[in-house]
Amino acid sequence: MEQRVSLITLGVADLANAAAFYERLGWARVEAPDGVIAFDLIGQTLGLFGLSALAEDIGVAEGTLGRGAVTLGHNLRTKEEVDDLMQRAEAAGATILKPPQAAYWGGYHGYFADPEGHIWEVAHNPFSPLADDGAFCWNGYG
Amino acid sequence: MEQRVSLITLGVADLANAAAFYERLGWARVEAPDGVIAFDLIGQTLGLFGLSALAEDIGVAEGTLGRGAVTLGHNLRTKEEVDDLMQRAEAAGATILKPPQAAYWGGYHGYFADPEGHIWEVAHNPFSPLADDGAFCWNGYG
Repeated sequence: MEQRVSLITLGVADLANAAAFYERLGWARVEAPDGVIAFDLIGQTLGLFGLSALAEDIGVAEGTLGRGAVTLGHNLRTKEEVDDLMQRAEAAGATILKPPQAAYWGGYHGYFADPEGHIWEVAHNPFSPLADDGAFCWNGYG
Repeated sequence: MEQRVSLITLGVADLANAAAFYERLGWARVEAPDGVIAFDLIGQTLGLFGLSALAEDIGVAEGTLGRGAVTLGHNLRTKEEVDDLMQRAEAAGATILKPPQAAYWGGYHGYFADPEGHIWEVAHNPFSPLADDGAFCWNGYG
């Protein structure tokens, strides 16, 4: 199995509300079938899909799908960018779980939950600088 | 906010067992601090982190972290590759949730849960061919 994730799909109860949150953060949708909201990432796509539709597509009961034990990391080039994005996320409707602060591994980070409870970590990692296009390469931080 | 996810972190109850599953699928770890298992993806890293440590790092109660309403998609170039990977995942310890089959959007896919309940979709999408390096570019399937 090659080491890659092609799609990240977030199951959401309120598709329109979830989509509006990411659009308030400046993300632009790409064309997608009815019932799916898609955002192109770098070599990857993030999709929003109704919780019940996702459960049906997988073939499991909707109640078995929880949220939160996956975190999506968005790394930035400076601490100031972390502070700024956390503020913009809160303004866009996020719940701040951990305000920006020094992280135990030597960087700087905060956490927010999107309107559906999916958890994002916003971080500056001085040990793993981003490529020009934003791609992230693990450099064994900490 | 740029459209990218730098890190995907899966909260897991049994770090060694979760890591062994991905290693059985052929993934190679990169160096990481104690308590973290890291796999380099394309321009992105997937990390395994203890559920209680993740909850503490976020600052929420462990019981609030569920699993499953995020799916991680791994796309392949042919239907046969989908069948093969689903079989190898089962042999490595995955639970098959949906055997490989035609998908409503015109492709071919199946779902499995890793030993911790995190859900992967394995798919062939004829509308969105992969780049040579495996990078995925959404092409509005369906």
